[in-house]
Amino acid sequence: MVPTYQRALIVGAGEGLSASLARRLSREGLRLGLASRSIGKLEELAAETGAALHSCDAVDPSEVEALFARMEPALGGPPDVVIYNASGRLRGPVADLDPDAVRHALMVSAYGGFLVAQAAARRMLPGRHGAILFTGASASVKGYAESAAFAMGKFGLRGLSQSLARELHPKGIHVAHFVIDGGIRSASRPEPADAPDSLLDPDAIASAYWDVLRQDRSAWTSEVALRPWVERF
Amino acid sequence: MVPTYQRALIVGAGEGLSASLARRLSREGLRLGLASRSIGKLEELAAETGAALHSCDAVDPSEVEALFARMEPALGGPPDVVIYNASGRLRGPVADLDPDAVRHALMVSAYGGFLVAQAAARRMLPGRHGAILFTGASASVKGYAESAAFAMGKFGLRGLSQSLARELHPKGIHVAHFVIDGGIRSASRPEPADAPDSLLDPDAIASAYWDVLRQDRSAWTSEVALRPWVERF
Amino acid sequence: MVPTYQRALIVGAGEGLSASLARRLSREGLRLGLASRSIGKLEELAAETGAALHSCDAVDPSEVEALFARMEPALGGPPDVVIYNASGRLRGPVADLDPDAVRHALMVSAYGGFLVAQAAARRMLPGRHGAILFTGASASVKGYAESAAFAMGKFGLRGLSQSLARELHPKGIHVAHFVIDGGIRSASRPEPADAPDSLLDPDAIASAYWDVLRQDRSAWTSEVALRPWVERF
Amino acid sequence: MVPTYQRALIVGAGEGLSASLARRLSREGLRLGLASRSIGKLEELAAETGAALHSCDAVDPSEVEALFARMEPALGGPPDVVIYNASGRLRGPVADLDPDAVRHALMVSAYGGFLVAQAAARRMLPGRHGAILFTGASASVKGYAESAAFAMGKFGLRGLSQSLARELHPKGIHVAHFVIDGGIRSASRPEPADAPDSLLDPDAIASAYWDVLRQDRSAWTSEVALRPWVERF
Repeated sequence: MVPTYQRALIVGAGEGLSASLARRLSREGLRLGLASRSIGKLEELAAETGAALHSCDAVDPSEVEALFARMEPALGGPPDVVIYNASGRLRGPVADLDPDAVRHALMVSAYGGFLVAQAAARRMLPGRHGAILFTGASASVKGYAESAAFAMGKFGLRGLSQSLARELHPKGIHVAHFVIDGGIRSASRPEPADAPDSLLDPDAIASAYWDVLRQDRSAWTSEVALRPWVERF
Repeated sequence: MVPTYQRALIVGAGEGLSASLARRLSREGLRLGLASRSIGKLEELAAETGAALHSCDAVDPSEVEALFARMEPALGGPPDVVIYNASGRLRGPVADLDPDAVRHALMVSAYGGFLVAQAAARRMLPGRHGAILFTGASASVKGYAESAAFAMGKFGLRGLSQSLARELHPKGIHVAHFVIDGGIRSASRPEPADAPDSLLDPDAIASAYWDVLRQDRSAWTSEVALRPWVERF
Repeated sequence: MVPTYQRALIVGAGEGLSASLARRLSREGLRLGLASRSIGKLEELAAETGAALHSCDAVDPSEVEALFARMEPALGGPPDVVIYNASGRLRGPVADLDPDAVRHALMVSAYGGFLVAQAAARRMLPGRHGAILFTGASASVKGYAESAAFAMGKFGLRGLSQSLARELHPKGIHVAHFVIDGGIRSASRPEPADAPDSLLDPDAIASAYWDVLRQDRSAWTSEVALRPWVERF
Repeated sequence: MVPTYQRALIVGAGEGLSASLARRLSREGLRLGLASRSIGKLEELAAETGAALHSCDAVDPSEVEALFARMEPALGGPPDVVIYNASGRLRGPVADLDPDAVRHALMVSAYGGFLVAQAAARRMLPGRHGAILFTGASASVKGYAESAAFAMGKFGLRGLSQSLARELHPKGIHVAHFVIDGGIRSASRPEPADAPDSLLDPDAIASAYWDVLRQDRSAWTSEVALRPWVERF
């Protein structure tokens, strides 16, 4: 049985991957909600995709609850696809990192994912239907030097995703984690002329998310790593 | 850029997953070749899908060469999708295993994959275009007790696939390994009435292979694990 | 070159594994410090091993700084072995978990490890000498159902450890992560009479930590998984 | 309980790591046997360590049987420590590899390990006592470009080791796999003057093997990765 999804919520939406996801999900007929700490930059995308827009600090439990409460009427029901895209990227030698910044990065990368997944799961469990998708990075599976804070957060998010997959798959909720292993093409980071397709096309990533949403529940995946053909790994 | 494939060869074809793959690839418009040690059982499938059929022992270098030589005219060119499905399944306490049977299992699971991939790569490299897909199992990533021979072969095939992905992706050839983590539904192993979708639907697996073949080369995956929603892992 | 260590600090010390580590390190001639949120229970162990004792909430940056400031004179110099043993264990269906308890578990399992490692690294880097060891669990490498909070924290700690190993090994600081994959024997959890050695002996774990501290820097390990001979995995 | 071992057999013995292992095991009081395809180069080592020497092609079942039959009287009983060190290293673009050389590399890296482990296990099982150790490489866990044959063999050996660990640990036989992740220092590959300890000291590797043999069975490891402090990974 291939589940059919109707309402998607993207948390941690920005102008890159999230925009491609929004356009794709909208084109596939889903009603859409977008949430971000600062939503000014998302107004154009919301207009284009008909998405409901709501400001939300994903590391604050009451804001996450308010987000889901707000989205339910806007989407005509609770979202049955929830994508967590936020992450707290922070680099530097371990001795130089600011402890408050590290805590916040960990909160954004991992704890916010938990809060959003919990709010989503509570609404999906009664109907035994839904999908929760997490966006990871190279740092989700390999701890790089001078990346202690980011590795901690991204490994944490992956642990969360694996645990939820084992818990929620048998309850009808598909959980998957995407390892984006390379740079993503954007307006500020265009494709090098001499290296075609050396940066991930965000539309291609969105296709991979959509493929997972279209999987028959007899053959679900819980993790997909994506990288450009010329990427070293 | 999403590659466009035209001619597929499935090696180690049987009546289960391979039949679903054959039907799907044929429906998507690819010309098809099927190879197996004993092709009698495949005649019906070949008729249905218009596939060229050729007997081949994949662990014999000259037979593999002959297979590719035979397929090229039959398909109107060398295959640009090659799928290796054969495996040497063998179980038992390590002390009881027959060394000849173990060697043969290792040959079928891993060495045959090498021979087929090498023949495929040689034909794909000049055009910098093609895809080589390997079918793995739970045993590809976890060595189970009393499964020494199967674990050895399946881990080996995965090592082959990883090495080829790193070597061939930058040359335009997509290499991917599928971890089928569960039992596959079949005529002889039907779905239990009280556990819907608890066995992988081979058509759903074929969809996952097709999704990978449709990936933009800026966002290729090199491994996908698939399992039923209710599978323990 | 095998490093020689002189002063060890164990953070998150309790009566189980930490006591074995304390006794072993003391017997090997290291001066010892023990830190925990509540140190009343550690007084006997401190007396036995001659350890300096200090109360510390490892998730509070200023308390961690105070701990290291206090330990330096007590040990006759900054610790050159620092072991992080604390973890925030929390179980339950994701829908039932209390968000505050989850945040605290994540702080204890992962963020406290960062704070302690940072304070340690700052003191070890000038002399290019030291070791930082992290205690992990089965949940560090496999996300179990109904264990979202614990998996998130323990995966996070492992990511931290991997990142620090890549950053600090070339600076002379050995970083290692121990996956304790099974139950640990204790007064409250004695060995079952009919299953000898089916629970990890904490003295045996301490031996494994000591083996890693005795490694030549040309052959350092950064992770060791330990489990009882009869454990399923 | 820490097992006590008395008789060791090293298969695939050469002049590097195997010599260090032989010296260490001999110094620890074990009686020793050495086996290799060509044993001429081992005579000095055998004389120094009092080892019994026997020529053996590890990929031939009858030669492996003959080796164990020969070693039993020479060592005063069947070996209770068996180390498999042989590997079939082969590099090159996949299109250029010679199929016969690939098959032989796979046989040496993986199948020989099976034959030796099977012969060892058959002799260890009745007494529920023994240890089987496998030497891996970076290629055991990461498939490198232009290393298809070596990756296939080394992944295969790791799969074998994992399967045997799960099967034989509960029967009292300790199985462990060592990932040697870096170059090993030798007469022909001396330490660079400006990069101390940048190549693995074979004596340090031998210490790590010995540490594993000294583990209490309540806290066995089944894999250890070793790399120089300055190695990139």
